Amino acid sequence: MACNGGNEPLLLTEQQQPKPENNCIASVKSRKLRRCKSAPMVEPVLQESNMNRFFERPKSIFDQVNPHYKRVATYLFIYLFISTICFYLVSNQISGVKTYGILDSIYFCIVTMTTVGYGDLLPNSTATKLLACAFVFSGMALVGLCLSRAADCLVENQEILLIKAIHLRREANSMEMLKEMETNRVRYRCIILSILLVILIASGTIFLTTVEKMQFVDAFYCVCSTITTLGYGDKSFSTPAGRIFAIFWILMSTICLAQLLFAFAEFYTESRQRSLVHWVLTRRTTAADLEAADLDDDGVVGAAEFVIYKLKEMGKINQEDIELIMTEFRNLDVDESGTLSPSDIFLAQSTR
Amino acid sequence: MACNGGNEPLLLTEQQQPKPENNCIASVKSRKLRRCKSAPMVEPVLQESNMNRFFERPKSIFDQVNPHYKRVATYLFIYLFISTICFYLVSNQISGVKTYGILDSIYFCIVTMTTVGYGDLLPNSTATKLLACAFVFSGMALVGLCLSRAADCLVENQEILLIKAIHLRREANSMEMLKEMETNRVRYRCIILSILLVILIASGTIFLTTVEKMQFVDAFYCVCSTITTLGYGDKSFSTPAGRIFAIFWILMSTICLAQLLFAFAEFYTESRQRSLVHWVLTRRTTAADLEAADLDDDGVVGAAEFVIYKLKEMGKINQEDIELIMTEFRNLDVDESGTLSPSDIFLAQSTR
Repeated sequence: MACNGGNEPLLLTEQQQPKPENNCIASVKSRKLRRCKSAPMVEPVLQESNMNRFFERPKSIFDQVNPHYKRVATYLFIYLFISTICFYLVSNQISGVKTYGILDSIYFCIVTMTTVGYGDLLPNSTATKLLACAFVFSGMALVGLCLSRAADCLVENQEILLIKAIHLRREANSMEMLKEMETNRVRYRCIILSILLVILIASGTIFLTTVEKMQFVDAFYCVCSTITTLGYGDKSFSTPAGRIFAIFWILMSTICLAQLLFAFAEFYTESRQRSLVHWVLTRRTTAADLEAADLDDDGVVGAAEFVIYKLKEMGKINQEDIELIMTEFRNLDVDESGTLSPSDIFLAQSTR
Repeated sequence: MACNGGNEPLLLTEQQQPKPENNCIASVKSRKLRRCKSAPMVEPVLQESNMNRFFERPKSIFDQVNPHYKRVATYLFIYLFISTICFYLVSNQISGVKTYGILDSIYFCIVTMTTVGYGDLLPNSTATKLLACAFVFSGMALVGLCLSRAADCLVENQEILLIKAIHLRREANSMEMLKEMETNRVRYRCIILSILLVILIASGTIFLTTVEKMQFVDAFYCVCSTITTLGYGDKSFSTPAGRIFAIFWILMSTICLAQLLFAFAEFYTESRQRSLVHWVLTRRTTAADLEAADLDDDGVVGAAEFVIYKLKEMGKINQEDIELIMTEFRNLDVDESGTLSPSDIFLAQSTR
């Protein structure tokens, strides 16, 4: 049974490779080594699928992510279409600095949905005021829920490209790259969003000084007031060209800043989580820990039991998660042996 | 060994209670049952600590949560103090509807840090414009990162009170309450925040109609424009009493709406997560699954192995988490038996 090849792992590392002259003993040895290793079967499969995701995503971006973007783009288009039509129909009840009817309507929608609210265009009738109230809530939800997620995906793709670019020089292997990405995902996100924000601030400031003929300080002040959605409104986009630029720029820059703040918060949370993980892993294991970790009461703690105990301590899983899975386990474990074998599965599924 | 009481679980359920007349067989039977159960040792301990948290938190609110609130309150106080002093010193460079110097400064700070930005008070010199830029970024970070977390804790306490109130009638036991809370936490959060938001909207509208003498529609429009941080600025708080009210009301209502949107997003994510968990638990387990789940290659899948496999499938944990813990496991498993015993721990810790 110890020499039975059926239970051998599919992939053996160089150290584990059994020598041909003494296959049986080597196999026992390798079994011992394997025992201490986690999931020899699952590991290559999972990593492979991760690898595929890692390497194929930028290529297959239009296959994989497109349905999501399409949906978000559709929502945005529907929202903008309806609100633009509405505000265009009541444009005589909107006062302020005007350019072209339809352009002003789109600009007003964008300024409202991102909650910038300059106040350079103002609803001045009961109907338009209530309309603005309705659209700001729906717009806020749209920006907060849908667009942020779409931006999330875009940034993730940029991260992958950035890490690839960094590693192109070092000629590291793909496994290292994958690990690097998993470990420093949030850090790369912060870097990319910071760079993007600086570009957006610079482009906005340059545009306002050149096209809207503002002074440098005023332009910078208007940019800051816009990306934070403060929108005092004393400085805003008042030319037709400015408003066309604003429609795209406001949407991008407000989402970018919000995402950056979110990434910083995530970075902070992850750092704390990491120190917790470090503490859990390095603290002294006591006999009481062993007793608590021993799920099947056989007096020793197996690898899987140890993993579950530590995961619980790290707060990654809770008792409820385990209970749910244990219920399913008990359903499948027809012979109540405490372990699942193919015969258990067969019996459990034939009686269902 | 099978009758050895040392390995018996500390708590036995009624079904598992060994009968006195045939203690040895009963104990073997109960061992069998226990084998299929998760963590008999950890469970009561963990649940007890949860219970304590559940029942003592509202009582010990000033012991447990206070340090966090204190820190947040200190940050807020420092921010408001510094920014108020700054804007008070340059109040001659701020134009617009004015009441009392120091009150206007605080009001301007609140309107700026929450990114409402009415524009009823405007910086009109280069220095004040740059000052406003600096304060809006820092204020945004403060509101987004610190205040939101403090609000989180407050809402959590409200949730506990709400669930207690609901269960007071039903006279359910405390375990059920705990489970109810864990399962429907996000739903209760949405309910509480919605109620709070309605109260804030109503109080704001009533205040604006009575004190600021606005028409009902204008008051509602101003309230909507404020809580969404839109802040067109055509309607705002212009009396001294209004500005005192605004200082507290704007801070509360903007955070409340942001938290509500966040809770809705969480609710959506949780629903999706729940259907994934349901799918993972109810899908047909195949022989290939068993092979993949069998971490120690003994041909059968133990409870702990099954739990890890399913947790991975649910996306709650990933290979990296497991790898980290397995490294620690290998360090502790000195005799390379694939299991940890007290002697392993002793050896590992004496050689370190």
